[in-house]
Amino acid sequence: MKQRAEVEFEVRYAETDQMGIVHHANYLIWFELARTRFCTEAGKPYPQIEALGYFMIITQAQQDYRLAAHYGDTVRVACWLDWVASRSLQFGYRVTRDDQLLTTGYTRHLWVHRESRRPCSMPESLRATFLEIAEQTTFKGPEKNRPESDSKEKMLCP
Amino acid sequence: MKQRAEVEFEVRYAETDQMGIVHHANYLIWFELARTRFCTEAGKPYPQIEALGYFMIITQAQQDYRLAAHYGDTVRVACWLDWVASRSLQFGYRVTRDDQLLTTGYTRHLWVHRESRRPCSMPESLRATFLEIAEQTTFKGPEKNRPESDSKEKMLCP
Amino acid sequence: MKQRAEVEFEVRYAETDQMGIVHHANYLIWFELARTRFCTEAGKPYPQIEALGYFMIITQAQQDYRLAAHYGDTVRVACWLDWVASRSLQFGYRVTRDDQLLTTGYTRHLWVHRESRRPCSMPESLRATFLEIAEQTTFKGPEKNRPESDSKEKMLCP
Amino acid sequence: MKQRAEVEFEVRYAETDQMGIVHHANYLIWFELARTRFCTEAGKPYPQIEALGYFMIITQAQQDYRLAAHYGDTVRVACWLDWVASRSLQFGYRVTRDDQLLTTGYTRHLWVHRESRRPCSMPESLRATFLEIAEQTTFKGPEKNRPESDSKEKMLCP
Repeated sequence: MKQRAEVEFEVRYAETDQMGIVHHANYLIWFELARTRFCTEAGKPYPQIEALGYFMIITQAQQDYRLAAHYGDTVRVACWLDWVASRSLQFGYRVTRDDQLLTTGYTRHLWVHRESRRPCSMPESLRATFLEIAEQTTFKGPEKNRPESDSKEKMLCP
Repeated sequence: MKQRAEVEFEVRYAETDQMGIVHHANYLIWFELARTRFCTEAGKPYPQIEALGYFMIITQAQQDYRLAAHYGDTVRVACWLDWVASRSLQFGYRVTRDDQLLTTGYTRHLWVHRESRRPCSMPESLRATFLEIAEQTTFKGPEKNRPESDSKEKMLCP
Repeated sequence: MKQRAEVEFEVRYAETDQMGIVHHANYLIWFELARTRFCTEAGKPYPQIEALGYFMIITQAQQDYRLAAHYGDTVRVACWLDWVASRSLQFGYRVTRDDQLLTTGYTRHLWVHRESRRPCSMPESLRATFLEIAEQTTFKGPEKNRPESDSKEKMLCP
Repeated sequence: MKQRAEVEFEVRYAETDQMGIVHHANYLIWFELARTRFCTEAGKPYPQIEALGYFMIITQAQQDYRLAAHYGDTVRVACWLDWVASRSLQFGYRVTRDDQLLTTGYTRHLWVHRESRRPCSMPESLRATFLEIAEQTTFKGPEKNRPESDSKEKMLCP
């Protein structure tokens, strides 16, 4: 299994909506929290990456919602590197509560220069680390037969 | 072109993040605002659907981010029905600023009973309307060769 | 010093705005997180209070912002009971980062029945606990020389 | 009555919480939306103020919640200038739904230089306009009998 970072936290009241469950937009924020932890544990804290003059702009995200989280729950979010290409990369995520899988997803990112906001290659200082963590020897993009969550509807009991 | 609803509004300061652009989680909230308008214009306001005893739970969402929105921008979000199956349906979205495409995406939903939170068929009272709007004569799920946004990275100049 | 609960957590990227600091609305959400911890540590978890058929509706809040929090900071929020009256109560808050005071504030609440949404007295099962924690022997409202807008509770029908 | 700006918009689903009403933190975001409109109508759009090199940092806010807003409601927020001092100013707000008053509040701000984040005087180019709108001939702070915690401005280094 690939190297992964995990965060654990309590669901906030403000994260619920009138359905009585966590509003689905919050999972992107939770993904981000786990991504931050991932970078920190990799020894490349994201605030330092920005300070170097780079942003990791998000170009695509997908979320698969299976079970709902509720106020008072303690949830865990795991984050790992799916793949690393020269100018882009993809993180994967799993949100769980105890042994229940709540949500999975991925976010795809592009490196840009902070000032010009133009796409660029991954900063030199991160390459070795990120390739190693992704268990890659060279840059490569998404596989052709890549994920896209299954099309069969899953049972939901939020 | 399928029937679509549109909302137009100003970007809020609180929607920005320290990158100086709208945080990507907000697009799901904007999609929802357009979906609400869609239901209202279809003559089936979502508050009434909930009052009938149903929720349209979200099971999957995808967002493709192309250009960033900024504080002070006026943005438009268009929403339409991609397809309608017996127990699920998919909405599509386009966020634009003037003639620039900022973000596209979709959300997939499952009907559940409000009390039991168990999956169920689309409420009888909505069927005729939703099928007509989706330009379908019968229920059908996602096509096999369905979208999934192209894998080629797009140029981004947020 | 009165009994207080504390939470500690990392600032999230999504909590920042284009000023490069945490958007001021988030402090109310942080206060809430500390208030939740307070109730849990008092042996009266807020989800249980709601399950009993009560809401602790917010009627007033004030925040004094002194120093800004940033993405990557670890912040602490302390919460305590300012006073407990028969139908209302007030919590106080302090947000700190290391030994720096960032924000203080209070929230005033009114008890309402969950179903009717009408004001009511504090649930019997909480009285002894909350009075003890507030270091009060009987219910009493805000002090006269308290720095607040008005002491008369307003009717709320949310 | 002082010159005021107004915004009108629909309540978003994501703004609700599990109490079935709008979460109280959102009112600060709504105040901000009205404050933005205020500056625009005064001929001094806030994005231009930031571009000039200034921020209007928030130092205090208070909200009085009377009635709750719900998903599907159309709400109006009015914003006006309470007073203008040389380095600070205060905006007042009223949130209504039809003829019902939902929430009132104020936000107090301090001018800071964007780069240094140090307090400064109101930008010269805004003075005449803001004084006229506030119906003041000279700068003055909050009145003594004003319902506020303290009149002394605190140093801010966000």
